[in-house]
Amino acid sequence: MRMYDLIMKKRNGAALSAEEITYMTAEYTADKIPDYQMAAMMMAVFFQGMTKEETAALTKAMAESGDMLDLSGIDGIKADKHSTGGVGDKTSIALMPMAAACGLKIAKMSGRGLGHTGGTIDKLESFPGFSTGISTAHFMEQVNRIGISIMGQTLSIAPADKKLYALRDVTATVDNLSLIASSIMSKKLASGADVIVLDVKTGSGAFMKKEEDAFALAREMVMLGKSAGRKTIAVVTDMDQPLGRAVGNALEVREAIETLQGKGPEDFLTLCMTLGAQMLLAGGKAETEEQAEAMLRRVIDDGSALRKLAEFVEAQGGDPSAVYDTSLLPQASYVEEVCSDREGYLTGMVCDEVGICALMLGGGRETKESEIDLSVGLVLKKKVGDYVKKGDVLAAIYANDAGKLAAAASRFLKACSFGEEAPAAGRFIKGIVR
Amino acid sequence: MRMYDLIMKKRNGAALSAEEITYMTAEYTADKIPDYQMAAMMMAVFFQGMTKEETAALTKAMAESGDMLDLSGIDGIKADKHSTGGVGDKTSIALMPMAAACGLKIAKMSGRGLGHTGGTIDKLESFPGFSTGISTAHFMEQVNRIGISIMGQTLSIAPADKKLYALRDVTATVDNLSLIASSIMSKKLASGADVIVLDVKTGSGAFMKKEEDAFALAREMVMLGKSAGRKTIAVVTDMDQPLGRAVGNALEVREAIETLQGKGPEDFLTLCMTLGAQMLLAGGKAETEEQAEAMLRRVIDDGSALRKLAEFVEAQGGDPSAVYDTSLLPQASYVEEVCSDREGYLTGMVCDEVGICALMLGGGRETKESEIDLSVGLVLKKKVGDYVKKGDVLAAIYANDAGKLAAAASRFLKACSFGEEAPAAGRFIKGIVR
Repeated sequence: MRMYDLIMKKRNGAALSAEEITYMTAEYTADKIPDYQMAAMMMAVFFQGMTKEETAALTKAMAESGDMLDLSGIDGIKADKHSTGGVGDKTSIALMPMAAACGLKIAKMSGRGLGHTGGTIDKLESFPGFSTGISTAHFMEQVNRIGISIMGQTLSIAPADKKLYALRDVTATVDNLSLIASSIMSKKLASGADVIVLDVKTGSGAFMKKEEDAFALAREMVMLGKSAGRKTIAVVTDMDQPLGRAVGNALEVREAIETLQGKGPEDFLTLCMTLGAQMLLAGGKAETEEQAEAMLRRVIDDGSALRKLAEFVEAQGGDPSAVYDTSLLPQASYVEEVCSDREGYLTGMVCDEVGICALMLGGGRETKESEIDLSVGLVLKKKVGDYVKKGDVLAAIYANDAGKLAAAASRFLKACSFGEEAPAAGRFIKGIVR
Repeated sequence: MRMYDLIMKKRNGAALSAEEITYMTAEYTADKIPDYQMAAMMMAVFFQGMTKEETAALTKAMAESGDMLDLSGIDGIKADKHSTGGVGDKTSIALMPMAAACGLKIAKMSGRGLGHTGGTIDKLESFPGFSTGISTAHFMEQVNRIGISIMGQTLSIAPADKKLYALRDVTATVDNLSLIASSIMSKKLASGADVIVLDVKTGSGAFMKKEEDAFALAREMVMLGKSAGRKTIAVVTDMDQPLGRAVGNALEVREAIETLQGKGPEDFLTLCMTLGAQMLLAGGKAETEEQAEAMLRRVIDDGSALRKLAEFVEAQGGDPSAVYDTSLLPQASYVEEVCSDREGYLTGMVCDEVGICALMLGGGRETKESEIDLSVGLVLKKKVGDYVKKGDVLAAIYANDAGKLAAAASRFLKACSFGEEAPAAGRFIKGIVR
């Protein structure tokens, strides 16, 4: 088999066989196929696409290119959740304890990543002492004991995807649906869960700006999960404005805690309930959505989800008292309110721009080496659709540097748009793909 | 400027500016843009194409990426001729002396190349002592003195093209019209001639199998030559069977000599007359095609073209006596006739296959390091359209190895097809693009 022939075949519009894709993936990972041939192949894929069979073969080959996490030592149904990413997305921090409190086993492997704010692991480090640098044995034991654990990506999970993504990133071949789907799903498959619930974001703060593209990605990923024998469900959700009200690591943890206390913002609670219900249904813990939602409401109302979070934090070396007293989370030196100089309905908030404000304040990583300031960020006081008078507070900004605060405030104001009429209210949950 | 943005721009179907193409070409040649980015760009070009302006900019940038041969020290109009290549193509060996005998200045830079037989330089080395390893000063002086010289590619001509072609060759991005045209024309522009006559082949033995593709390539190259201020004409000609009757280095030289003696095969003579007439017209030596053809016929009839070949060979260190006595050219040990085992009209001869026969005999290079056996090859006794009886001689095979001879004879027979009706006679000269 020669890579040249495979490039030509794909370029000319034919489908590659599973054997050909497996060969190509293995040889590329082993540095036996040069980057320039793979770059030509990726661009050919961009133009010619891949069939479902090709995408499934690529996903499987990438998943099997490194370690496959074996979760069989954990009793019960293991569930995982993945979000395609957005601004203010603290979902895992509330959802994982909720699902665990309902009896599902949550064994999550996670990375840090570059972004406007940190990833789930960074956010959880707002609990003093919290660590994800635990052994696989500790990880498995903890899930068996308390039903929840999170581990940093210490194993070599899907190295083929890592290498291929890095190449796509510099050759303008990232935005292809099949390639995006196989990149995400190869890691999920290697992480070993039985149930995979995907939160596919759409809107100005999402990778998929258009709803139809988000649904297409959702369908592709569900197909890939199912064809690998995993129960896979995708929920397409709005990311046209930040999720909830908090944007910034410790601020988001506080909001997740408030949500587990029954005081969370409506959109964020809706998201946790919807994703959680799908996890419980797929995991066999409930038979109807109503039943699942009732279970989730109960673990909030009776405080067991909040206690599960405290148990989880403590099991990983963190101080659980911050769960009950959020003033123990990292605190910023300055808090300043940004007031509106206009009057009218808040018709839009450019989601990415709000994320950039958090990044400017020091809440995210610009390079792999950046240190994150966990305490900074924004808390929105108005959301799209609210009526705003001149002088009303739009948001509170948390900062440790007065200069950065002023720059973020000014940028935040520019991200808001106003109008005389209330904007049409879009649905927050766009749909579910099973 | 970032290569990433240029790949994205081309991928999305926009045209790159001349500035962008110049940047990309220069940086790639200087190893500042990695192969994998250029490979992605070439595949994007394959799918999105290039405008005339883009192709002209790429051609200019590649031409200027190395040395540009300055022929201003040569008096008069300098003409060059290029063929896209085929089997039995010994055109330059007859045509250059014909055009020089008519007063044009022929300053040709040439390579060796891989192929079924050698390139023009290899063929000319059939004259004992002939050398193209001459200095630029010798080259210029010789053209000024006798009107004709050929020099091996000692200068760094269009290194960008060399590097880009090598990349395209392993990434399945060779067969794009704009890229093919710019590759050829960048070298022609760097070689400095005022008049460029292109022989674009079409048919089973040509790179462009379809006539419409050959015309498209011809138009593209003429556009590129003109936009660089050179008089450029392309003649589209048949390569559905070997050109003339001889295939093999010394055998082709003998056929070129016979043609200068007025005893050449009809198709080959037609080609030399057509290309020669275009050179004379473009070079201002004649005003009409009739006038030009009369001049060319005269230099054959009065022996001045043959004497020009002898003068040329001698000026480059070769023994000119072989021009008048072809038995002094390299001779093979075995000559065997291949006879037909069928009767009927010869309806086709797979051109590439005849070339492979010559290669099998040792007449071409399989790798850059291969030594060429100048004496071997085939001389066709029948051409397509001839009526053949059982036992008629189809070709004579010249070899230095009995085993290779038998293998070539068997392969040659398989390349011939016969039928009960005479094949429709196609035009040999398909058209002229000015």
